[in-house]
Amino acid sequence: MSTSTSLVIICLHEKEVDFELVPVDLFAGEQKQPHFLAKNPFGQVPVLEDGDLTLFESRAISAYIAEKFKETGYDLLRHQNLQEAALVKVWMEVESQQFHPAIAPIVYQFYVVPLKGVSPDQAIIDDNLEKLGKVLDIYEARLSSTKYLAGDFYSLADLHHLPYTCYLMKTTAASVINERPHVKAWWEDISSRPVSKKAAEGMTFGEKCTLKIKALLL
Amino acid sequence: MSTSTSLVIICLHEKEVDFELVPVDLFAGEQKQPHFLAKNPFGQVPVLEDGDLTLFESRAISAYIAEKFKETGYDLLRHQNLQEAALVKVWMEVESQQFHPAIAPIVYQFYVVPLKGVSPDQAIIDDNLEKLGKVLDIYEARLSSTKYLAGDFYSLADLHHLPYTCYLMKTTAASVINERPHVKAWWEDISSRPVSKKAAEGMTFGEKCTLKIKALLL
Repeated sequence: MSTSTSLVIICLHEKEVDFELVPVDLFAGEQKQPHFLAKNPFGQVPVLEDGDLTLFESRAISAYIAEKFKETGYDLLRHQNLQEAALVKVWMEVESQQFHPAIAPIVYQFYVVPLKGVSPDQAIIDDNLEKLGKVLDIYEARLSSTKYLAGDFYSLADLHHLPYTCYLMKTTAASVINERPHVKAWWEDISSRPVSKKAAEGMTFGEKCTLKIKALLL
Repeated sequence: MSTSTSLVIICLHEKEVDFELVPVDLFAGEQKQPHFLAKNPFGQVPVLEDGDLTLFESRAISAYIAEKFKETGYDLLRHQNLQEAALVKVWMEVESQQFHPAIAPIVYQFYVVPLKGVSPDQAIIDDNLEKLGKVLDIYEARLSSTKYLAGDFYSLADLHHLPYTCYLMKTTAASVINERPHVKAWWEDISSRPVSKKAAEGMTFGEKCTLKIKALLL
């Protein structure tokens, strides 16, 4: 299960939306499958099909699910409070622009590179751990004044951190989280939500990340 | 004016929101100013202040403005149509995750590196132009079936492309746009909107990008 697919699945579970996972074969020989490229021209999973609507880009899918099903399950967007909703948007962007560019190369080195029969590049890991540490210093300060990133409520901003951090925590680089007490407490909180724990069981790199998600309309 | 600040200004103009630009001094000696870090702990412009709400991350700010002022100015989110709004989200994420990582290093080499008295690194430019070309091949196919990225309507997804592309078009790398007829037509369309043209006049790298924006409540 890819990190991006896991993110969408966690969101669907939090919103109590029924869905089915449809395995797809991304490649026909060396070429991406034309019928998959018709759904996502960038050729990446996940793709969400909801009736005749086809969506890609995991963060856009999760925002769509959180918005469409705003009246069911857990409120991930704080849609009844414009100020809180704005802070959810801010910290979702922080994940996208600050956290993700630092953590993604680390997880890639630990999990994807060995699948190619190559050793992880420690210089890349160290360089990005330094960047991630600087981002997490800011998280540490933030989480000393609010319980979650956008405020004293769990939101999509926290949820978006789950898949990559889940993989990171199984490596020696977990110290970058554990050394920061407020970040550590936040991580233990968000990763122990029933939905997060259930999703974590399905997250194993090396499995084929070729899945299509089909949301059933409520 | 930074590209990120320009993006927010374009959005404010499209929504016909009054605002003031408040110059800020980002640095006190070698250190970031504490009073600015209190507004954005990542120490970057733009910051938007709207009453007692302080926001950062330009894409989050523009989404907040488009949402809060959804009844005034041009509708950038298609907020009355869930499917169209979902496609706006998808193509906003494409800009963030696919387009931006390729164009940003090119613009940085052409405009920021020379300010440091160093020549642009042609290898970095070429490498990222190749990546950008692949993304724009997908845009070219998309824009042959819809007038704008999310559909036959201008949206925040198109708007988010304006500042960086505006800088790119003043360089020799402009051919990456001009060689693709549908992308070229789309660029000429979105950059000729009155708001886009007005904003482009204020975009000059080398100016100090130290601005704070204060939105006046309507």
